[in-house]
Amino acid sequence: MLTKNQIKLIHSLSQKKFRVQHQMFVVEGVKVVQEFLNSNYKLVEVFSTDISYSKFSSNFTKVSSKELSKISNFSSPNKVLATFQIPSPSKVNWSGLVLALDAINDPGNLGTIIRLCDWFGIGDLVCSETTVDCYNSKVVQSSMGSHSRVNITYANLEIVLADSKVCYGAFMDGVSIYQEELAETGVIVLGNEANGISKEIEALMDSRLSIPRFGSFKQTESLNVANAAAIILSEFKRNVTEM
Amino acid sequence: MLTKNQIKLIHSLSQKKFRVQHQMFVVEGVKVVQEFLNSNYKLVEVFSTDISYSKFSSNFTKVSSKELSKISNFSSPNKVLATFQIPSPSKVNWSGLVLALDAINDPGNLGTIIRLCDWFGIGDLVCSETTVDCYNSKVVQSSMGSHSRVNITYANLEIVLADSKVCYGAFMDGVSIYQEELAETGVIVLGNEANGISKEIEALMDSRLSIPRFGSFKQTESLNVANAAAIILSEFKRNVTEM
Repeated sequence: MLTKNQIKLIHSLSQKKFRVQHQMFVVEGVKVVQEFLNSNYKLVEVFSTDISYSKFSSNFTKVSSKELSKISNFSSPNKVLATFQIPSPSKVNWSGLVLALDAINDPGNLGTIIRLCDWFGIGDLVCSETTVDCYNSKVVQSSMGSHSRVNITYANLEIVLADSKVCYGAFMDGVSIYQEELAETGVIVLGNEANGISKEIEALMDSRLSIPRFGSFKQTESLNVANAAAIILSEFKRNVTEM
Repeated sequence: MLTKNQIKLIHSLSQKKFRVQHQMFVVEGVKVVQEFLNSNYKLVEVFSTDISYSKFSSNFTKVSSKELSKISNFSSPNKVLATFQIPSPSKVNWSGLVLALDAINDPGNLGTIIRLCDWFGIGDLVCSETTVDCYNSKVVQSSMGSHSRVNITYANLEIVLADSKVCYGAFMDGVSIYQEELAETGVIVLGNEANGISKEIEALMDSRLSIPRFGSFKQTESLNVANAAAIILSEFKRNVTEM
């Protein structure tokens, strides 16, 4: 049985200010909840129509389907909703290959990029403070659990990129990524969906990369940022394989 | 001023059977409508809050913002909604590099893949009859106008792939795409989001390709099919550049 306070708390977590205040976020659905249960994330509370979830926490509340739909963001809620603690990010390992995002707005794009980091073994994702919050429920759901395997840090990119790191920025007019020599370490920077990398961050780039367009139509839109991330990470990693 | 019949017709076009019956589909928003106006697609009717759209067709209806929101799929309608004729697909150029889709369900994925074909100069996209309809409004909007620059055909893949074409299929357990020799022509086949390429189509593949996973976590989900398409098309084309 759900209390009014539980409902109120879970609803409030759709807003970043309350996630920060309570240091908690929401995860939904059998598959993604399981990924977080298998990870180092600390479970706070679990709400399910299935009593077997009670084994994961004493903070278990058995709910009816109707109650679950009251707290769910899904149009068809899937058995379970849980809240987890927001962890303190670990220290960024700048000696590896790091991905940095400058003002990514779309939660689905951020979720897909987290999933790509997981696939390509990128341990650290550094987001500008203007990037959408990674504990936004759409980000959590679209990362499909990869969230629990990538260290995500928010930072002022102008400060953290301003020392001797080798920075590769993705631009519409850079050098072909197929021709450029790509190191195994460094920082790859992707910019905002509409405006690309901001002027301040652009000034810190050592290399300007571009994905060549092969179509003959000049009006073709730029690639979606998640697709650009997929191609760029693949290019950095394919060289590692071929060594 | 919108008539009841106009509203009824436009609403009906959200269903495939009525798009097929009327041979028409809906396009929305200033940017995407402009892409279709610049293309070979034939405009049927245009509805806008902006009278300057009357220059494109005598079938122009000036509408109020309130009327536009009655026919729009957007939560914030953007000035214009137009209907265009569904064209007969051109003959597929099988001597080039063709992308084939086996039962892609998600309209956003199909839209993104159309945009990728446009970027990488893939002129022909052949979809199984089980693939989501490319004139579904979510597909049209997420392809961002690229729709007008790629020849999209629906066919029984078992029949059209069954002759001497060289077929590359994307699998979880194939040969690394970074190691395989990729020709400049042939057919790349991508399968359903959940189940991959069906058994019948799998039997027709000459080469089984895979995108290696670099992360050390075995539980990492497969890549999203649109991201896989981005990486695979980039791999086929990077070899062309390097020649």
